[in-house]
Amino acid sequence: MSDLPPPRPARALGRKSIRPSLTPRDLMADEDLANVWTAQVVTLMPEAFPGVLGLSLTGKALKEGLWALRTIPLREFGEGRHRNVDDTPAGGGAGMVLRADVGAKALDEAIARARGDVPRLLLSPRGRRFDQAMARDLASRDGVVLFCGRFEGVDERLIEHYGLTEVSLGDFVLTGGEIAAQALIDATVRLMPRVLGNHHSAEEESFSSGLLEYPQYTKPAVWEGRAIPEVLLSGHHARITTWRQAEAERLTKERRPDLWRAHLAKLGRPEEDREL
Amino acid sequence: MSDLPPPRPARALGRKSIRPSLTPRDLMADEDLANVWTAQVVTLMPEAFPGVLGLSLTGKALKEGLWALRTIPLREFGEGRHRNVDDTPAGGGAGMVLRADVGAKALDEAIARARGDVPRLLLSPRGRRFDQAMARDLASRDGVVLFCGRFEGVDERLIEHYGLTEVSLGDFVLTGGEIAAQALIDATVRLMPRVLGNHHSAEEESFSSGLLEYPQYTKPAVWEGRAIPEVLLSGHHARITTWRQAEAERLTKERRPDLWRAHLAKLGRPEEDREL
Repeated sequence: MSDLPPPRPARALGRKSIRPSLTPRDLMADEDLANVWTAQVVTLMPEAFPGVLGLSLTGKALKEGLWALRTIPLREFGEGRHRNVDDTPAGGGAGMVLRADVGAKALDEAIARARGDVPRLLLSPRGRRFDQAMARDLASRDGVVLFCGRFEGVDERLIEHYGLTEVSLGDFVLTGGEIAAQALIDATVRLMPRVLGNHHSAEEESFSSGLLEYPQYTKPAVWEGRAIPEVLLSGHHARITTWRQAEAERLTKERRPDLWRAHLAKLGRPEEDREL
Repeated sequence: MSDLPPPRPARALGRKSIRPSLTPRDLMADEDLANVWTAQVVTLMPEAFPGVLGLSLTGKALKEGLWALRTIPLREFGEGRHRNVDDTPAGGGAGMVLRADVGAKALDEAIARARGDVPRLLLSPRGRRFDQAMARDLASRDGVVLFCGRFEGVDERLIEHYGLTEVSLGDFVLTGGEIAAQALIDATVRLMPRVLGNHHSAEEESFSSGLLEYPQYTKPAVWEGRAIPEVLLSGHHARITTWRQAEAERLTKERRPDLWRAHLAKLGRPEEDREL
């Protein structure tokens, strides 16, 4: 399902040397990190967190201690009086590259605090695309260490040395990895027990079934001359289920032939693919 | 390049009736909206904005008036004393569905203020995937109206009535559309003139060329026993360019056969695809 590295034995810290803390700001996590799923985020913009994650259902779950968030401000590990974190690209070119040695100090700090099975990811447009299977996989671990890229990129040696898995939100370029980190955390945290509460069923939604979601309607029964499809008001549960399944299939077929093919293959009906 | 609706004539407002304002909070935009690219966001969490968009280069550009942001708080258009915005799904099922009539009032408010050619998008996992071509397309318009979904979904009739284009960040489910809206705005705004300044070249990066970005290195020359590739320190510009191109091609071929095939096709060399 997922290409993430396989789970490592619990408490196997990636590096043994625990350096004196440079007093990174802790957002909602204790110094020892609560015994819950914890996202540690290395970032030049710690003030961007928790951001949206501190609101709504993820924010409520954060306050209730169902998960924890800790930022590691990269700037505090910078070099010299100006705490420089970047330098010009070897070989020339525009922009600045994040230094491997500076990034390493921040990552060491995160890894020293991580407990259990905690994948290390770099948000980067070069990475494999984040998807629902990866969110489910991450939710089953003990947490995640996320390194947010900035500028032209990150020194390649940092990626190699720490075996960072590069993860991308999609085929577009962001100013930095922070929004991507928030999306990844949001999609993961909402899959954890008790986070969604009664508000929602994670089972019934897009990608859980491999199909796009069927159309939804609510009151009023008629709006701007448009009526709710009759079947949905019939009270006939079997017919409603059939209609919804047919609509989900129709939408998936129309909009996402790739998902539709995968769906047919999963059902052992690849031959029906021919009509596409 | 893009499936967005074609540009409409400037100043063609989608709806003529301008309702009395329900005093939505304006973040950085004047009442009349500055004559710059403007993102209007209909959301249940206006406090999530500007969020990350108010920091770093996008935040600097926002303060300098290179673009504008306005939130339309959906809650203010809710029904009754509790300002209800949602109701149970017709036909049954878990969760709540955003009402079409409530969403319409918020959209009308946004559309009445919009100037010029402003696509209307709904962030939804059912949508077409956001990508760099779409970011470029949006950056060339006069702004965008974004409707952030929540709960189980949005009444389908709202989508039909306003011809909303459904846009997805990827094959994963978020608690709401707000993080997706921020990603879309960030990727778009950074393409606008003067936003990146000298920090970066939008020309040289992933997806501009159709290839993933080549590895970057910076000081120190040797770190943890790993040296910067010799060619990058050679000062020989032609060799450096050749090396970077080869690395970009290698990474794209390895990680993204889909992009590689598209790249070959663009170059008129589809036959080389056979080796994949």
